[in-house]
This record gives sequence, structure tokens and C-alpha cells, in this order.
Amino acid sequence: MKYVDGGVCAAKGFTAAGTHCGIRKNRTKNDISLIFSERRASACAVYTQNLVKGAPIEVTRKHLEDGCAQAVIVNSGNANTCNANGVYIAEETAKLTSKALGIKTEDVIVASTGVIGQQMTIDPFAAGIPVLVKLLSKDGCDDATEGIMTTDTVKKQVAVEFEIEGKKVRVGGIAKGSGMIHPNMATMLVFITTDCAIVPAMLQSALSDCVRKTFNMISVDGDTSTNDMVSVLANGLAGNELITWKNDSYDAFYKGLYAVMEGLCRKIAKDGEGATKLIVCNVKGGKDYETCAICAKSVISSSLLKAAMFGADANWGRVLCALGYSGADIDVTKVSIAFESSAGRINVCKDGFGIDFSEDNAKKILTENEILIDITVGDSDFSAKAFGCDLTYDYVRINGDYRT
Amino acid sequence: MKYVDGGVCAAKGFTAAGTHCGIRKNRTKNDISLIFSERRASACAVYTQNLVKGAPIEVTRKHLEDGCAQAVIVNSGNANTCNANGVYIAEETAKLTSKALGIKTEDVIVASTGVIGQQMTIDPFAAGIPVLVKLLSKDGCDDATEGIMTTDTVKKQVAVEFEIEGKKVRVGGIAKGSGMIHPNMATMLVFITTDCAIVPAMLQSALSDCVRKTFNMISVDGDTSTNDMVSVLANGLAGNELITWKNDSYDAFYKGLYAVMEGLCRKIAKDGEGATKLIVCNVKGGKDYETCAICAKSVISSSLLKAAMFGADANWGRVLCALGYSGADIDVTKVSIAFESSAGRINVCKDGFGIDFSEDNAKKILTENEILIDITVGDSDFSAKAFGCDLTYDYVRINGDYRT
Repeated sequence: MKYVDGGVCAAKGFTAAGTHCGIRKNRTKNDISLIFSERRASACAVYTQNLVKGAPIEVTRKHLEDGCAQAVIVNSGNANTCNANGVYIAEETAKLTSKALGIKTEDVIVASTGVIGQQMTIDPFAAGIPVLVKLLSKDGCDDATEGIMTTDTVKKQVAVEFEIEGKKVRVGGIAKGSGMIHPNMATMLVFITTDCAIVPAMLQSALSDCVRKTFNMISVDGDTSTNDMVSVLANGLAGNELITWKNDSYDAFYKGLYAVMEGLCRKIAKDGEGATKLIVCNVKGGKDYETCAICAKSVISSSLLKAAMFGADANWGRVLCALGYSGADIDVTKVSIAFESSAGRINVCKDGFGIDFSEDNAKKILTENEILIDITVGDSDFSAKAFGCDLTYDYVRINGDYRT
Repeated sequence: MKYVDGGVCAAKGFTAAGTHCGIRKNRTKNDISLIFSERRASACAVYTQNLVKGAPIEVTRKHLEDGCAQAVIVNSGNANTCNANGVYIAEETAKLTSKALGIKTEDVIVASTGVIGQQMTIDPFAAGIPVLVKLLSKDGCDDATEGIMTTDTVKKQVAVEFEIEGKKVRVGGIAKGSGMIHPNMATMLVFITTDCAIVPAMLQSALSDCVRKTFNMISVDGDTSTNDMVSVLANGLAGNELITWKNDSYDAFYKGLYAVMEGLCRKIAKDGEGATKLIVCNVKGGKDYETCAICAKSVISSSLLKAAMFGADANWGRVLCALGYSGADIDVTKVSIAFESSAGRINVCKDGFGIDFSEDNAKKILTENEILIDITVGDSDFSAKAFGCDLTYDYVRINGDYRT
């Protein structure tokens, strides 16, 4: 498998575009994006489990009932959530998009991100959508990625290429997400495209399983958004034999999808609001995957641990504390903890007790911008990884006055 | 019921003291405290549910098996948690205390707070305990309170006086706690004394119920400490008839205990690490108390909401979002939200949708240092209150380098 450029345009038959249509006041930043497949594609999505859901999620869920879609329309700057006319806006957006593209309204995925509970009108969509359709191109991924960003500071794109039965297959995705990130069964806005030929049921299976191990393992701030959504479009143009069951081709596709999704996860966590570093926590040896996952997610979600990482402080007691309150069934006398980065590795706790270590060395390791917290909780072969970031002054600054 | 001074020394027969014994490097701050009852008292405690527990908790739990105690010895500066010799240190501390006071070792409650996983020796205890015994006095509560503080910026004491069968009864408490505060079934270090005559089983019942509604409803940072403990000593010197069942006297005692505990809760939340304001969230109308409690705690635990409160930003979408992911069974179309402070009250959301409000007025209300977020989720008479604080630059500063 190799990494390639192009994000959602990497796979055959996909084009994208982004522009400014007036939802945001800042005219220099795109606020609406379109992704298009020249052929109607297998499509599926997973959504936030928050009881409060954005109106676009309701509309998209209906449109994906038949397992097919051909376009994705997304705006930033307004989440279209808790608005009295929210469903109307989302439905009209799909209609305008289908009309401009000459496709069925039910084949349009709609998504929104931004402030909750702000009134909006259909006017900017009516103005922007025809422009987007004209702009659609194989080089449009950068513009489309910009169009979905809110407090993100970097564009998040990952694409891979691999083979299925000798045919080149590509999977590519873009993501936005920086704050209100603690996905539950779903995630931030993530759009993935692939030219793999695969039926909707298999696509949904691969997506759901990957989401559980990737996006559901990120936390920036413990807040589960109302608008999380990951969608995949698979248009089959790679020419592989249609994947209809869990055979070797499915496994190959799964690995490709996983690589794209883990790559996007790392980018989202590293670009968490105000973050200066990526924190990955690996937990192995629990009695099952879930036990390891609960431990890993508890550690990267701890505000105290996140602040300590910002300060490059090897305060491992906070790691142990977070394991202890995680709810996971573990034996704390079997816990070992190490910190690792490109500057080296240091063991700080063994069998639940502290061990002597060099504070200078620990400081050097924790000053890097990608930190691994490596934890063993027992003897099994199960393991899980979670993705987070440090807690910084800038997180507070950004969120102290987000709406202005 | 009236509020009185004196904290743990307010009730008859209790004295206290605090001093510096060398556990902390800073010699100007007390690091060890003693509370003493002239008569052996009914005693009970609740403890952290974190799987990782401080060694003193193990020892105290054993000592309270008979429902009686006469003294509390507490140090700050080192949590005595995850130390290989932790239980030995805690047991020796109890022995030294009992010897110096001439009481049974099993009648000593031991507690510690500070950094986890730092080695410690018995030497500072051996030096400090005899000094403490000499210092014991009716005016010692301030010194004792200082001796248990870590990042706390204010001393937290509350005491009340009320009558049972014409006898004056007092309940008083002191608390420490500023960070790593998200108690689960237990809480920070809290020591309460009363001269009420009450059997251990009734004392435990009142304590457990009050803890559920007060300390378990605070969150500063979502991190449940390894050393949380609330203990109560009741020495019976008020002269009321011994409370042995849930009669009117029990109810009167319960109200007094609740008042002390809610008062300490508000002080702890307001003095949360880095906090500039107290946030109280009141939720009413859920299908039971638990539903209201889950909602209220989810709101005051949201990092995004806490940062918005720091910025005096009426971003009510974050309140609704936190209700939605709380896990509580509520109908989001019945949610109404108002912000209130000494500067006024403003409605921002009705039936799940935003309503027009004056941003200027909202800003004025949220700039005060005690904010009420008042939420209705349905028609029932159930309600619950949770206590939190804002998330500020200083929280990050304090926790970026806590150990130095």
C-alpha cells in the first residue's frame, strides 16, 4: 500500500470544488464544498449518537436508505442544528445540488458544521451551488477541504493506493474537526471516496468497524458534537470484481480504508483546538479489545494529563489515575507505563508503582510534538490505540469566544 | 438553622491544629493537620471509586469497620498513592497519632493529598505529630484547613447550628480540593464534625445520601481522584437523644449535614483550579432524580461550555449539545435554557430551538462570578443541581507543571 495525493479526488471518477457563498462573513475563506462521482456509487455513513442532531443528518440518513449516492454538499460556518427551519434548509440544499448536477435528489449527501442554533436562509446555497458545479475538477480537493474547515488550522487529507486482484484501487478522504471532538459511534465531518467496487452492505461493515477503531478513539475535549458524520462513496471504477462478502478483496479494501481513517484521525487529533502536540495512547494486555479501548480513551481524555503533556511534565500518576477511574476491569498492580517520542523512550511505572527515572530525559522526550503513552495492563494480546492532544492556553482562548 | 464560624471546631468537644512538618519544601505553608474529639465518636466515611486508591484509604477503611473514631490525621504535599511502602507509612502515621493522643490506633482516620507516586518516609510525621497534639485548640481550624490545601486558593469551612428536641446541635466541616475533581460516589478530602448523638448506621445513611446530591455533583476537570474521602465524626456532646432511626431528629440532622456539604461544594467548585467563576446548573422536569443529575453534571463538565463561561459567551448550543450526549433519556424538543446571575436572567432556548435575545444583556449576566444555568427538560417535579467552574488559562498553567 502506498500513500498518494489528491484526497477525495485520488480515486477514479471523483471531482471536487469549494467556494465562498456568504454563510461566513469572512470572504477570504471557502464556506461550501461539493464532492461528485461521475458514476452513482455505493454509499454509507455513520452519524453522531448525540440526541441533539443536526438537520442535515436527518436528511442524509433518509437519502442513504437505498445504499447509493453520487454527490456530497457541505457547508461550514453554521451547523444548521436547532433551527426551526433546519430540515427545510437541508432538503432544499439537496434539491439545488441535484438540479445543478442533473442527478436524483436522493443521491445527495448533505452536511453542515459551525455554530449551533444560528438562523440561516437558503440564499447563500442558491448562489453558491451553481458556482461549485462549474468549478468541479480533479484538482478541487484543496478548495473543498478549505470549505469544510472551522477552527482547523491545517487541511486534513489522506489517500492510499493498493491492489485488489491486480487492479489498482484508491481510497481517499478529507476531514474537518478541531474542537467538540469526542466522537461516539460516529465522528466529525469526514468524506471518503474510493473507486473500489463493493456492495453497500460490505462498505457499511468496513466503515463501521474502522470507525470504532479510529474516529471513535479520538478525543480533543470530551464533547460529542451534534453534527458528526463519516460518509464513504465507492463508485467501482477501479474495475475489481464487485466485493459482496468478506473475502481477501474485502480484507485488502478494509486495510486501505483503515489506513485512510487512521491517517485522518492523527491529523484531527494533532490539530485539536489549541493543540501543540499529538498524544497517542497504546494500551495492550487487557482481557479484550474493549477493555484496552476504554483505558486508552480515558487516558487521552484526561484534562490533567493533557495539561501535563502541554508542560512536558512526566506526571505519570495522572495516567494511572485515569486508568483507575476509566471503568475498565483491570488489575492496577499489573500496570506498566512508558513515554516515547522521536527523542527516545522512558519507563516510569512498573506493576503499579513508580520507578526511578531521569526527569531531564523525560522532559526531552515529552518536548517533541508526537508523544506515545505506551501502557501494559496485563498479559493478553489485545490492544487498542487512542488519539488526543494536549490542553493549552489557546484551547481556552479559542473557545472563550467562539461565536464572534 | 444558622451559619456559624469555627469549621470542624464549631461542634462541642472538637479541637484541631495544623503545622509544617517537612513533607512540602515550602516551609511557610502547613502540610499536616489533626482533628480531635474529646469523646470517642460515631464515625463513617465514603471513598473514591477509582480502582487506584491511596494507601491511607485502605487503612482508614479498616479503622472505621467498628463505626467509631476519635481523631483525623491528614497530610498534603504527597498523596501516598502508588508507593511501595504506602500502607506501612499510613499505618505508622496512625500509630504515632494514637500514641501521642493516648487513644486506640483503630480510632485514627488517616488521609493524604498531593502528588501520586512520590516516595515518602515516616520521618516528617514522627516530627510533626507530637507538635500537632500540643497545638490542638478550639481555634485551630484555620491552621488545620491550611494543612490540607494543595492548589486551593481559599480556606473552605462551613458550619451550621440548629436544634434537635430543644438541644443546640452543630455540624461543621472543612474541605480541600481544586483540581482532579469529578468525584464518583465519594469526593475530595472533606472532614466533618458534629456534636449530634447519632448511631453509625444512621450517620452513614445521611452521609451517603448527602454525598450523592452534593459532592458527587461537582466537576472541575472530569478527573476522579485516587484519594477522595469524606468523613464525619459525631461525638454526641450536644445531648440530644441518640438518633437510631429515621425520625424527625434524623431529618433535622440531615438538613444540617446537607447545608454544610452543599456549602463546601460551592466553595470547592468556585475555587476550581484557575477558575474565575462558580457555575451552578439546575435541571428540572426529568423523569427521575438521576435523569436530572446526569443532565446537570454533563453540562457543568463540558470543556467547551466551561470555556464559553470564561469568555462570558452565551453559546447555549453547547449546553444543548452536552444534554444530548449525556446519556440521559430526555426529549430534546422539550428543553428550555436560561442564564441567570445577580445581573439578571435571560432565556436563550425554548423547546429545543434558539430564541432571540440581547447579546449585550447576556454578556452582562455572564460577566458575574456566580452563574446559574437553569434548564427545564420536561414537566416532572424532579430536579438536580451540579456545581462546576469555568475553564481558564490558569487551569492550563497550573497543570502544565504541577509537580515542580
